[in-house]
Amino acid sequence: MAQEQSPRPVDPRTGARGERELLRRLAAELPLLPGPPGFGHDVAPLPAGGEGLLWTTDMLMDGVDFRSGQHTWHQIGRKALAVNLSDCAAAAVIPVAALCAVALEERLSLDDALELLRGIRDCGAEFDCPLVGGDTNSWQHPTVICISVAARPDGDHPPLSRAGARPGDHIYLSGKVGGSLLGRHLNPTPRLRLALELNRRLGPRAMIDISDGLAIDLWHICEASGCGALLEETALEAVIHPDARRHARQTGKPPREHALYDGEDFELIVILPPDVPAADCGQLGLLPLGEITARRELVLRDAAGRQTPLEIKGWEHFRG
Amino acid sequence: MAQEQSPRPVDPRTGARGERELLRRLAAELPLLPGPPGFGHDVAPLPAGGEGLLWTTDMLMDGVDFRSGQHTWHQIGRKALAVNLSDCAAAAVIPVAALCAVALEERLSLDDALELLRGIRDCGAEFDCPLVGGDTNSWQHPTVICISVAARPDGDHPPLSRAGARPGDHIYLSGKVGGSLLGRHLNPTPRLRLALELNRRLGPRAMIDISDGLAIDLWHICEASGCGALLEETALEAVIHPDARRHARQTGKPPREHALYDGEDFELIVILPPDVPAADCGQLGLLPLGEITARRELVLRDAAGRQTPLEIKGWEHFRG
Repeated sequence: MAQEQSPRPVDPRTGARGERELLRRLAAELPLLPGPPGFGHDVAPLPAGGEGLLWTTDMLMDGVDFRSGQHTWHQIGRKALAVNLSDCAAAAVIPVAALCAVALEERLSLDDALELLRGIRDCGAEFDCPLVGGDTNSWQHPTVICISVAARPDGDHPPLSRAGARPGDHIYLSGKVGGSLLGRHLNPTPRLRLALELNRRLGPRAMIDISDGLAIDLWHICEASGCGALLEETALEAVIHPDARRHARQTGKPPREHALYDGEDFELIVILPPDVPAADCGQLGLLPLGEITARRELVLRDAAGRQTPLEIKGWEHFRG
Repeated sequence: MAQEQSPRPVDPRTGARGERELLRRLAAELPLLPGPPGFGHDVAPLPAGGEGLLWTTDMLMDGVDFRSGQHTWHQIGRKALAVNLSDCAAAAVIPVAALCAVALEERLSLDDALELLRGIRDCGAEFDCPLVGGDTNSWQHPTVICISVAARPDGDHPPLSRAGARPGDHIYLSGKVGGSLLGRHLNPTPRLRLALELNRRLGPRAMIDISDGLAIDLWHICEASGCGALLEETALEAVIHPDARRHARQTGKPPREHALYDGEDFELIVILPPDVPAADCGQLGLLPLGEITARRELVLRDAAGRQTPLEIKGWEHFRG
């Protein structure tokens, strides 16, 4: 998440030091549940006794994921819940309730704190996910907000994860991407309704929401599924958001770079079996992007059929 | 939580500005669930769709709730989960699983981060509460750890809250208190097994774990239940922990002050109906302390029957 700093390249084979290395070592060490480990995934299933529920948690920090000087506390609260609901969308599960823990910077007024909590509440009301409790703290450092959301499966439709993509599967996007920093990143719309619809009608193999960037989040699917991906250049051009083009005029980079590497779009990357008719995808507003491959790399194919490797980079925390 | 700073008095009638005022305004404004609001309570029930589960969240900040220079990351991780399990104990519910979100200070090594997560894992193994996932972040400021725990009711035994105490009820403690800063605060033992046993055998009216201090946490029960409390001086003398006496020699304060106002003991305050035989309480190691009163105040009664008001203070966050 967060695009306020430059993305760093990640070596797709060895994995750079940083959050991914931490997650790899965690996965090797922690006796997590059978099935996909919860760290590095969008939602985690509760074990036996958890009645089939799932949950997710996301922490947002002032100066990293938002800027309290630029954004209102209501916007910040709304976003803090929305990113969790976007994780629920990625798994195609139905949010039930939210908990919120905060470490508020001491200079905040009570009204600031209430605005923050109103932002969370209002976003919860919009998506049927009430804020039911939490933990309030204060300290001298920038504000930290941590929201947890409990969710339930959508009837018999199984929750989705990043794992499950197979070579030959088709890659779709729920919307155009890039340039969210121009403002959209502050008012993300979790694709919850679309995700449930997709899961009911088209049976996706895997999904993820774009928080760190199209390239790296697609790569997260590839890693979890043990495969690679090929993007069609013409398809990629068609998913570039107008904001990516506007932003490119400011940064001097090609608009495509912004589509591939900007974070916080919160659109879904949807992996569908090859036999799903393109018309059904179009009906739901999905935009085609390419296909899953057996070879563990990310490549771009131009109209002449030439393939070039795509750099796998995006926002990565903990580069210690 | 945390005793690294001095406690502040809280006016029991008006309520000082600060966390309590924020909670009061939250409760007035947020359309929380029917029943006791989740903010300011130890665990919150999930609403419909949540299959009867409950959950809790606690955020710990470096320099406030722990000191990374003094404590090992394994201790810190263990404590971060233990304080959540102590909330489960207060509600007499059975933890199911934990999620952990962290903002790691950038200078931390991967090994530090792994030690932190091993501490959480090891505490989880001890109390059958596996860590099933989370969210890792890093930033330039002190480390923040936020753990959420999902829990289930203990069969037909209803979860307990702070509300439910009635005048005439008896007040007990699960153990001696005060002076935890000498070391016990770093290795808290959530009173989970005792709490379940109590709920099965004696039917408590209300419970809370002592995180902010005996006086203020007892007052939290009084506020939620609409009553007051009377402590017997001789009983209070008998619950002073040896560490409180040792600490008092360092601070020059009376040991009783440390028993009343030190935080992070994580013993339970147990409110029992007056007809529960004292012998049954003794069998479970409970220590008598006094009784619930109708008048909304906290008083101490000496052997001669003289009553003096007790100051209601303890650790309080967000004094903005």
